[in-house]
Amino acid sequence: MEPYAARIKDVLERRAKAGRFAPGVAAYSDSDMFKKSPSPDLPKAKRWDDHFTEECKGRKQCVLKQAAKHLNTPGLISLGGGLPSPSYFPFSSLSLSVPTPPDFSSSATAGSSPLRTITIGKNDIAEGKGEYDLAVALNYGQVTGSAQMLRFVTEITEILFAPPYADWGCAQTTGSTGVLETAARMFTERARGDKVLMEEYTYSTAQETMEALGIEVVGVRMDGQGMVPGDLRGTLEGWDVGARGRKPHVLYTVPTGQNPTGATLTPERRREIYDICEEHDIFIIEDDPYYLLQMAPYPPASSPPPAETSSLPSYLSSLPGTFLGIDTSGRVLRLDSFSKVLAPGSRMGWVTASAQVIDRFLRHGESSQGPSGFSQAALHTLLDRTWGHEGFLAWLANLGGEYTGRRNVLLGACGEFLPGVATWDAPSAGMFLWIKLDHTKHPRLADGILAIEDEIFHSCIARGVLVARGSWFRAASDGSEPQALFFRATYAMAGADAIREATRRFGAAVRESFGIKEE
Amino acid sequence: MEPYAARIKDVLERRAKAGRFAPGVAAYSDSDMFKKSPSPDLPKAKRWDDHFTEECKGRKQCVLKQAAKHLNTPGLISLGGGLPSPSYFPFSSLSLSVPTPPDFSSSATAGSSPLRTITIGKNDIAEGKGEYDLAVALNYGQVTGSAQMLRFVTEITEILFAPPYADWGCAQTTGSTGVLETAARMFTERARGDKVLMEEYTYSTAQETMEALGIEVVGVRMDGQGMVPGDLRGTLEGWDVGARGRKPHVLYTVPTGQNPTGATLTPERRREIYDICEEHDIFIIEDDPYYLLQMAPYPPASSPPPAETSSLPSYLSSLPGTFLGIDTSGRVLRLDSFSKVLAPGSRMGWVTASAQVIDRFLRHGESSQGPSGFSQAALHTLLDRTWGHEGFLAWLANLGGEYTGRRNVLLGACGEFLPGVATWDAPSAGMFLWIKLDHTKHPRLADGILAIEDEIFHSCIARGVLVARGSWFRAASDGSEPQALFFRATYAMAGADAIREATRRFGAAVRESFGIKEE
Repeated sequence: MEPYAARIKDVLERRAKAGRFAPGVAAYSDSDMFKKSPSPDLPKAKRWDDHFTEECKGRKQCVLKQAAKHLNTPGLISLGGGLPSPSYFPFSSLSLSVPTPPDFSSSATAGSSPLRTITIGKNDIAEGKGEYDLAVALNYGQVTGSAQMLRFVTEITEILFAPPYADWGCAQTTGSTGVLETAARMFTERARGDKVLMEEYTYSTAQETMEALGIEVVGVRMDGQGMVPGDLRGTLEGWDVGARGRKPHVLYTVPTGQNPTGATLTPERRREIYDICEEHDIFIIEDDPYYLLQMAPYPPASSPPPAETSSLPSYLSSLPGTFLGIDTSGRVLRLDSFSKVLAPGSRMGWVTASAQVIDRFLRHGESSQGPSGFSQAALHTLLDRTWGHEGFLAWLANLGGEYTGRRNVLLGACGEFLPGVATWDAPSAGMFLWIKLDHTKHPRLADGILAIEDEIFHSCIARGVLVARGSWFRAASDGSEPQALFFRATYAMAGADAIREATRRFGAAVRESFGIKEE
Repeated sequence: MEPYAARIKDVLERRAKAGRFAPGVAAYSDSDMFKKSPSPDLPKAKRWDDHFTEECKGRKQCVLKQAAKHLNTPGLISLGGGLPSPSYFPFSSLSLSVPTPPDFSSSATAGSSPLRTITIGKNDIAEGKGEYDLAVALNYGQVTGSAQMLRFVTEITEILFAPPYADWGCAQTTGSTGVLETAARMFTERARGDKVLMEEYTYSTAQETMEALGIEVVGVRMDGQGMVPGDLRGTLEGWDVGARGRKPHVLYTVPTGQNPTGATLTPERRREIYDICEEHDIFIIEDDPYYLLQMAPYPPASSPPPAETSSLPSYLSSLPGTFLGIDTSGRVLRLDSFSKVLAPGSRMGWVTASAQVIDRFLRHGESSQGPSGFSQAALHTLLDRTWGHEGFLAWLANLGGEYTGRRNVLLGACGEFLPGVATWDAPSAGMFLWIKLDHTKHPRLADGILAIEDEIFHSCIARGVLVARGSWFRAASDGSEPQALFFRATYAMAGADAIREATRRFGAAVRESFGIKEE
């Protein structure tokens, strides 16, 4: 709790000193406007020119956005930009009905407790009612989104991750999946024979993004604690350029509550992997959407299990740390997202990296025009105007408690309904359980793992349960067969009764396929 | 009016027959679900395989989204997808304060007339209160956005454009600028030496997008009515493959109220250009964000000028037609946007093209995850639940009246304050006035057009007016000097008094540079 509380205090003091902050339409902003001034003993980030692609290096700034710098001239009237007048936006105000701390119980979220109505108007800035309004949010903006929301995410980054180098910064995004494509195009190109290192089972869209661009994916072995550093080292040290082409210079990793395995790197592993990347000059793309979704230990320490809601101190002490938090070289592009902790439909997130990498990232994004103004208006009104930084963290703590309850139901159901060929590790973060089935016990082993997986998957559908096939997540551009049999289950969506029933059905499908009699 | 009214009636009858339409989270949808069944005599679109890039042809469907098809199985419980539970979205309802027809006067939009509060709740579908809700809008969705909003834009496309071939369809976008990059990657690649034909002055971001991808831009001459068909024909017929490389196979055009020239193609020119594209097998990217922003003729027919609000019949009769509306081969990818007619911050628009092109477009978009759910919820609640199709068209008619008033102020001020070296055509659509200065009359002509432009631009800034430099918009990858001197002014943002004062300042800067004495 301690460092977080001190950093929140810092942020609030800086805000108080800075006074009212209400920049107008398409105002320029960067994280340096909001960060704590870096202490002089912090290192500066390395330069990544030799990692960037030709496309990345050639990206120019949008000529029309450069002209926007003149808009700060006092008394200037603009006939320059193609911005519509906010007087013609048919939205005078936007209101949301939301829960407020400390009443973050699930009944409040579901709407049965009293909620608070919060509102952002079209002209709140001019009318002195707020620091952001619809006239600004709903007009064109900068690629990095509004200055108002960039301030909030920069502050949250400082509070939660405290990057240990001087020239870091943030940029808002329209969600992390889109960032993957941008990052791929910044760092890898087919013509150079580039490859990307990934966990051997990982987010399938990350692989699909790379493969669509002609970039080969190289899987690194995992165990219950995620990527195995020794295998990463072995892959890099034993790399045969003659046989395999250019050595990889980019690592893509989902370090916390990983999709699909649910694994979370220990601080020791994270440090070891970072050091290997330093040694081999690997740039790290840290895709960490589940980081803020932390759960209590399993099995529960006390019986009956702890209350559904987690306290803020225990939540904060459960945060396992990040690559960004140990990144003294500025070699990490970290991806954060509001999708898993507020709502995926916000299509809002942010990246954190060195100033050079952020600058290049924004040039790639010139055509995206930043996140939706409705999303920014909604999230700013909730997070900045209503909850505040500590309120947001309290929300996350409560959410972690809710997920703990759901996860415990699924783990309990697996213990009850799955036969002995099934094994799993209890996840401490995220929304996924990775279930291994011992294929060596399967009567039709000779048909191959994919055939068995296919049979069980369709048997599950026929019994009324959808689970995700392990092979969907396998990072292997070489087309080789998987060596083990996995299914991924999530406890994020279904209610407790449905989770138990679904697990029972899955167990029945597994038993039938393996020829295991009901006990 | 007539064809539009009949098509609206068709749409409403189809809706009544279909009954309640309230699909759930991430439901699959396509325009065929909402279109009028095509009559059997309509042609089918051509196939564009030989126009697509390798990347485009290689794009696969997202494996996780393919699994979503099983979600329709009755009684199925999903532990498969990584969708968070809507019970944890901290938004129970979203309300907007909006004007409603027929009270679309500027005072209503500005908030001084009574407005209506419209609301979308989290569980409106389950509670029978609506066909869309926050539980669906704020969760993950399909690339094409929600089925509910796809229905609305498909219907508007049918009502306004009535594509004359059978297998057209729409997909939602996060705004047209992002689409440009996708379209560029679908149709052009550096390795093939591809080039794109464009108006010789055009949207600078379109050029920047192409150049960032290593695609050469080939300008086609324009006059007051837009692209000159004869120059397009001459460019294509005289193309020397030996000297210039591969002949262009893509035309990018902004046909209505063009940015920056304000020009609108006549129906005859549009037809002529389409026929040239048929002959030379050119695929057309029709970027038409100003189409719905139509203004009354200038000078005003009556004195005093007509009332600010336009009638719906006169608005509809002013619509000049589109490439999509004459596209019998399915060779048009049309881009529409809500940015200019509702709010740019919505980051919402849609494309219309043949089923094959839409399919490829969606595969490129797998990583975008579609438009913001807040934007979709807001626009659906306004457009579908409140205004309806005819209400939306009435809003557009009113908006055209408002822009007519502003444009007339700017044109009046130009007549009053600009010296005789300045000439212009009155735009009938969009938000831009393109002002030509006769550089041959300039005392320092020998310095070159760019130097004169630079001098006037900075003199304008010093006098307190921002205008856009013509050279910013020039489509010429060859780096040649422009042959004429232009500035672009917009009447979209500033009020009447500010427009007059800004024009006076611009006129003073021009006079000084040209050495013209005040009259």
